[in-house]
Amino acid sequence: MGKKRIYLNAFEMNCVGHQSPGLWTHPEDRSHQYKDSEYWIELARILEKGRFDAVFLADVLGTYDVYNGSRDAAIRQGAQSPVNDPLLVVPLMSAVTKHLGFGVTASVSHEHPYTFARRMSTLDHLTKGRVGWNIVTSYLKSAALNIGQEKQISHDERYDIASEYLDVCYKLWEGSWEDDAVKVDKENGIYTDPKKVHDINHEGKYYKIPGAHLSEPSPQRTPVLFQAGASKKGRSFAVGNAELVFIGAPTINAAKHTVKKLREDAAKAGRNPDEIKILTMVTPVIGRTEEEALAKYKEYQKHISYEGALALFGGWTGVDLAGYDLNESLEYVENNAIRSTLESFTKTDPDKKWTVEEIAKSIGVGGMGTAVVGTPEQIADSLEEWIEEAGVDGFNIAYAISPGTFKDFAEYVVPVLQERGRVPKEYEGTTLRDNLFAKGDQLPAHHPGKKYSKVKQPI
Amino acid sequence: MGKKRIYLNAFEMNCVGHQSPGLWTHPEDRSHQYKDSEYWIELARILEKGRFDAVFLADVLGTYDVYNGSRDAAIRQGAQSPVNDPLLVVPLMSAVTKHLGFGVTASVSHEHPYTFARRMSTLDHLTKGRVGWNIVTSYLKSAALNIGQEKQISHDERYDIASEYLDVCYKLWEGSWEDDAVKVDKENGIYTDPKKVHDINHEGKYYKIPGAHLSEPSPQRTPVLFQAGASKKGRSFAVGNAELVFIGAPTINAAKHTVKKLREDAAKAGRNPDEIKILTMVTPVIGRTEEEALAKYKEYQKHISYEGALALFGGWTGVDLAGYDLNESLEYVENNAIRSTLESFTKTDPDKKWTVEEIAKSIGVGGMGTAVVGTPEQIADSLEEWIEEAGVDGFNIAYAISPGTFKDFAEYVVPVLQERGRVPKEYEGTTLRDNLFAKGDQLPAHHPGKKYSKVKQPI
Repeated sequence: MGKKRIYLNAFEMNCVGHQSPGLWTHPEDRSHQYKDSEYWIELARILEKGRFDAVFLADVLGTYDVYNGSRDAAIRQGAQSPVNDPLLVVPLMSAVTKHLGFGVTASVSHEHPYTFARRMSTLDHLTKGRVGWNIVTSYLKSAALNIGQEKQISHDERYDIASEYLDVCYKLWEGSWEDDAVKVDKENGIYTDPKKVHDINHEGKYYKIPGAHLSEPSPQRTPVLFQAGASKKGRSFAVGNAELVFIGAPTINAAKHTVKKLREDAAKAGRNPDEIKILTMVTPVIGRTEEEALAKYKEYQKHISYEGALALFGGWTGVDLAGYDLNESLEYVENNAIRSTLESFTKTDPDKKWTVEEIAKSIGVGGMGTAVVGTPEQIADSLEEWIEEAGVDGFNIAYAISPGTFKDFAEYVVPVLQERGRVPKEYEGTTLRDNLFAKGDQLPAHHPGKKYSKVKQPI
Repeated sequence: MGKKRIYLNAFEMNCVGHQSPGLWTHPEDRSHQYKDSEYWIELARILEKGRFDAVFLADVLGTYDVYNGSRDAAIRQGAQSPVNDPLLVVPLMSAVTKHLGFGVTASVSHEHPYTFARRMSTLDHLTKGRVGWNIVTSYLKSAALNIGQEKQISHDERYDIASEYLDVCYKLWEGSWEDDAVKVDKENGIYTDPKKVHDINHEGKYYKIPGAHLSEPSPQRTPVLFQAGASKKGRSFAVGNAELVFIGAPTINAAKHTVKKLREDAAKAGRNPDEIKILTMVTPVIGRTEEEALAKYKEYQKHISYEGALALFGGWTGVDLAGYDLNESLEYVENNAIRSTLESFTKTDPDKKWTVEEIAKSIGVGGMGTAVVGTPEQIADSLEEWIEEAGVDGFNIAYAISPGTFKDFAEYVVPVLQERGRVPKEYEGTTLRDNLFAKGDQLPAHHPGKKYSKVKQPI
């Protein structure tokens, strides 16, 4: 058996300065060009040349407004604000690539599953089967308010809604149109055999959809399912459905802890724990020499916006650190909310005292993930260590500066990982799912989504 | 003063056989390739080379199921079924063009205005200001049911919802972010000045949106507003907001009637009647000689699917013609619903008796519009006649076969129209609005949408 393969996603968002708040001020950063199609086209070419498996597009439908009780910090620092729609850059990127996959974030709270299912089928057709869906339930209160939800739905109920939403999508994607429904029979004038198109007759607690799917079957039918979920409900949702799970952890120890939990839950849910691929977030800072890399890292740190970092932290955790001094150590803060939301930081080393400044700095280059700094070989060493020690399967590569970080990683680190047998030299499948798992284009027969399929599945 | 300019839209839809049911069986038709990005990329190149102003993408969110009380006919004949999302082909087409505009159909019943406004701003950014929005209120019962509306909202109330929906969009697009809000000031670390981003505080009958727009201002802010509306409420909505109105009429007389009404209503609403550009639908059948064109037309007619045509007719009018003989004349049908919905046909010539077959044939090549058949010069003559006699400003060019019809029109008819001074030789603006009206990128100062602008408008 060869070495464990490393999966690589590029982590992006249709906004400025995705995970490294303030680094948009770096002279080489071009993430403020997110509005231009040219930016996305160039990025797609870089990533496919670098044999990334996919680009993972994050999204929020609100502005981070916990810090200091206001959205001003996020807006001023460009901390994921303004933010554009992620779906619409996918056709651009797919037009100049043949293999790169696209994981698109879309919340189950914000669009009806009937229209959403058509959007994803359309994308899967246009990309010839290269689409993934990062299922989120949305966590920003400002988003809930703006789409008319008087108060935000409780965390647990959001997962119940998500489960039914997913069921509706499965029925539309897997169960509505049979494989051979569409004939395009010009001779006999039959485009589709209506007997092979089925109403889904869904009547649930949250949705009622009597009809059939609007789109004909796309190459993957159900897009590859991505999920990020650190909470208990989130984990159980993830292990039940997701094919790729994304975590963020500032250290190997913290990641190890989450990976262990996820695989245990997967086993309990009756899934093969290794079938779920777990990717953690990493921001590489690459130099030709170690000194060069460290100098670069130091230079990047000068561009960190503490205000932007704490605005992001507030949105992610619900905790407002505006009232604390930068050098205040959070271990001593008598605040249970902070204690529990800092879990992923404190898990690192229970004895370590994180100051507000240290948290801001950690987020500043690499967000909720970690920065790895060094030569291409050192970065490769470090990634291999994460794979072996924490048990993750790969990485969401976030950028410090864009597209610079992606370009450096693709040019210098990927060849080393390929040399070491960790990353395949060529793409192996045509669809995203086949490329990732080499077991065909569609959901595996035993996946919960396949139970709605009209085709008898050999298990 | 020169001759009246002719505006040209290509009329398309993300489906097979858009307006000419059954013609997808023609050996040269490639509309079944709507699923492939290559189809849209090729089409965009043809249209920009042919100096079309825009491509107008229609949409439905349901299946035509009035005919024979079933959706089977529409599905079997591929009559606008299956149908994919229209927005997602726009980035593809914009990536290979610089001037072509994109009118995208989106219903106000099916997505929350807060998320929709962001989608359109995103498209306007990515296309550098080339997006139009065809505002529809949706007419298919199957669509209403599938998105959870127990019974379809009444026609009049739909227009009330549409009005408020549009108001929300105007507030987000025009009133939320000031022109100079976004600084991208790397030196001082200010991406956006939060004082120049405003909550819209919308509280209406149907929507409540406290927050600010998620996207920064796009080149046009509000996309160019398209509308099709033949009903009284539809007309009043159109004349209040639309910049481009689309009509369908089988004859010059029928079009003349509608154009007159529209301009009268516009004047009553206090708008300059000529400010609203009215486009009617035409399907050109072009030959090098008249004989060749007529032979082509005859050949096309052989491919008409009556079943498909009557399925479309049922969806458009709500009238099921399944029980009637093909040679039955509808003048004699004692059915008021048919009488009134046939208005646009009977208006042509009050003494003419339309048989079911004639209706099917008329729809068969050219849908609710008309076919014009002849040499490039004859087609140009005919279009000029429509412009002068019916008072329309231009045409939605539908296809008999795709992309063949568009290719022929672009190659052979457009040069004649350019020679005659009806179609400009070059694109004149960079944004769609500027290209159409040559008065800047954004809504004119006196347009109702501009009342939410933070900039004092010189009227």
